[in-house]
Amino acid sequence: MNKVNARATFSPEGPFKLTTIERRDLEPHDVLIEIKFAGICHSDIHTARGEWGPVEYPLVPGHEIAGIVTQIGSEVKKYAIGDRVGVGCMVDSCRECDNCHKGEEQYCLSGMTGTYGAIDRYGQFTQGGYSTHIVVTEDFVVRIPDGIELDAAAPLLCAGITTYSPLRHWGAGPGKKVAVVGLGGLGHMAVKIAHAMGAEVTVLSQSLKKKDDGLKLGAQHYYATSDPGTFADLAGSFDLIVNTVSAKIDISSYLSLLALDGTLVNVGAPAEPLPVNVFSLIGQRRSFAGSMIGGIRETQEMLDFCAEHHIAPEIEIISANQIDEAWERVLASDVRYRFVIDISTMENE
Amino acid sequence: MNKVNARATFSPEGPFKLTTIERRDLEPHDVLIEIKFAGICHSDIHTARGEWGPVEYPLVPGHEIAGIVTQIGSEVKKYAIGDRVGVGCMVDSCRECDNCHKGEEQYCLSGMTGTYGAIDRYGQFTQGGYSTHIVVTEDFVVRIPDGIELDAAAPLLCAGITTYSPLRHWGAGPGKKVAVVGLGGLGHMAVKIAHAMGAEVTVLSQSLKKKDDGLKLGAQHYYATSDPGTFADLAGSFDLIVNTVSAKIDISSYLSLLALDGTLVNVGAPAEPLPVNVFSLIGQRRSFAGSMIGGIRETQEMLDFCAEHHIAPEIEIISANQIDEAWERVLASDVRYRFVIDISTMENE
Repeated sequence: MNKVNARATFSPEGPFKLTTIERRDLEPHDVLIEIKFAGICHSDIHTARGEWGPVEYPLVPGHEIAGIVTQIGSEVKKYAIGDRVGVGCMVDSCRECDNCHKGEEQYCLSGMTGTYGAIDRYGQFTQGGYSTHIVVTEDFVVRIPDGIELDAAAPLLCAGITTYSPLRHWGAGPGKKVAVVGLGGLGHMAVKIAHAMGAEVTVLSQSLKKKDDGLKLGAQHYYATSDPGTFADLAGSFDLIVNTVSAKIDISSYLSLLALDGTLVNVGAPAEPLPVNVFSLIGQRRSFAGSMIGGIRETQEMLDFCAEHHIAPEIEIISANQIDEAWERVLASDVRYRFVIDISTMENE
Repeated sequence: MNKVNARATFSPEGPFKLTTIERRDLEPHDVLIEIKFAGICHSDIHTARGEWGPVEYPLVPGHEIAGIVTQIGSEVKKYAIGDRVGVGCMVDSCRECDNCHKGEEQYCLSGMTGTYGAIDRYGQFTQGGYSTHIVVTEDFVVRIPDGIELDAAAPLLCAGITTYSPLRHWGAGPGKKVAVVGLGGLGHMAVKIAHAMGAEVTVLSQSLKKKDDGLKLGAQHYYATSDPGTFADLAGSFDLIVNTVSAKIDISSYLSLLALDGTLVNVGAPAEPLPVNVFSLIGQRRSFAGSMIGGIRETQEMLDFCAEHHIAPEIEIISANQIDEAWERVLASDVRYRFVIDISTMENE
């Protein structure tokens, strides 16, 4: 066991405090990663505050991790010391079920091992990326292409793959009309990626406040959902809607914006059930679907796609002692568009 | 205009009375059909009782129509006098929109013209199959293959196509596990058709009362949904679930029975919205979809498929003066599995 620095929350209310946590000694297939940057995801907040179920404290969140390999286990084949690597929302899965065999480890039938807040195969409680180092089995590590800076790479490991995967799965591309609901951390990545895939992209946001941004990020159209006219104007328009909002919205109104055989896919998960008017599904053979991050192979594919298309998130770098403040700003939607913690500031605290 | 006999309801409460209605003189592409049999569909009841919105009375329901062509318009090319034909839930559409061009007239962007209770392109209120004759444009008439009796053909025009279309669309076939929720008029057709397509079929019914029937119809498995153990035992099992129940059920529990990338498709439409737990969608990239009858081309394909596979509905023939009683039995689920009105009994009233 090795003690490493981390920022942990000790209760649902916080605040974050500097502490030390233990990382396991390297197993033969493990790599030790010196974390350089960690993104802040809205789901860090949901989880740490117990909104998605009870959690153990102290908790070190963070599942958007970018760093450098500094040590490798005796049988590691994929990575070498000095490699630029990333870790996302999961650090392991059963690797034996049908879904794992398909490369869809995020849907592991035994439950994938979350990067934090989970019990891993060694019986240890996992702790995330708001820390200086992490030990991960090589199969759950991805390579960060040279074209992507490490700070920009971090949010791709959750916000990037969470939007890339459904866009790919439901065929976003030339000739397809894609709407993105919500222009936050996930939404702004969805716009960039869908645009790069060749789709015609529309942002559906509460107000027109971020319209200029949205158009710059690659959207062709931008509508305010607070304007009821939007729903009349756009009825039956889209092949695919990616809903990045995890608050409770009137999902049936959004479903009515889909064309024949269109799909609305939720990547956010509201705590309460959403009432669905079945007539709005039946009327045009529409689907309401959900999608969760992506598999490891697809995560690598996403990183390579982003490098090839020069896609990076819009980020604001913060110090490790600014996490509480950043969380408040995430909750107030006051971030354009992702906070990334510079982990080097933790080393020197 | 030609007066023909019909059984109409004059208020939401009924009862049905013998009356006469007018059918238009033949337009160049119209055929006059002497109706031999008309099926009774649960949606006749929903519509006539105003549960799906206000309706005009008197109303002649019936959208499962089988009969013989007795007269044709001057430019009719597809049918000749004496042909055995059917008419389903729609008698026209705009024929100009994208969906009509795709052969998905049921999703016509201007709204298809319902077989009853709609205003047609001539400004006339449409009246359905509980009558002796109907005039329909040839493009919305299908041919009943020789292998199918006229009485058995009637329910295929709604119950058959409503279940065939989603089974085909979502790929029911060998290697696929398909569940059918509800073993009524639609459900029993779904079982027969899915079985003929080569899928492994499970019935999910409230009780085990109809288990013997279900297995005879082609299901391999039969579970009672009143037993909570069913949901635990079958979690993550199915590629496709066809929900034929239009009452409000706990849809999230049913969604949890889907495997990765599975779809639950509602062919029934409950009046109230169904609360969907989004976690149950996200957890295995599941979809909740809706489907409505099928296009004309696909309806013909379904009839040909049924003839080829010797599939026919289980029916109970009634006289025209037994409609009220039959409706009560439909509401009490006391029919195995479809009532069909022998229209010849109306002629002689």
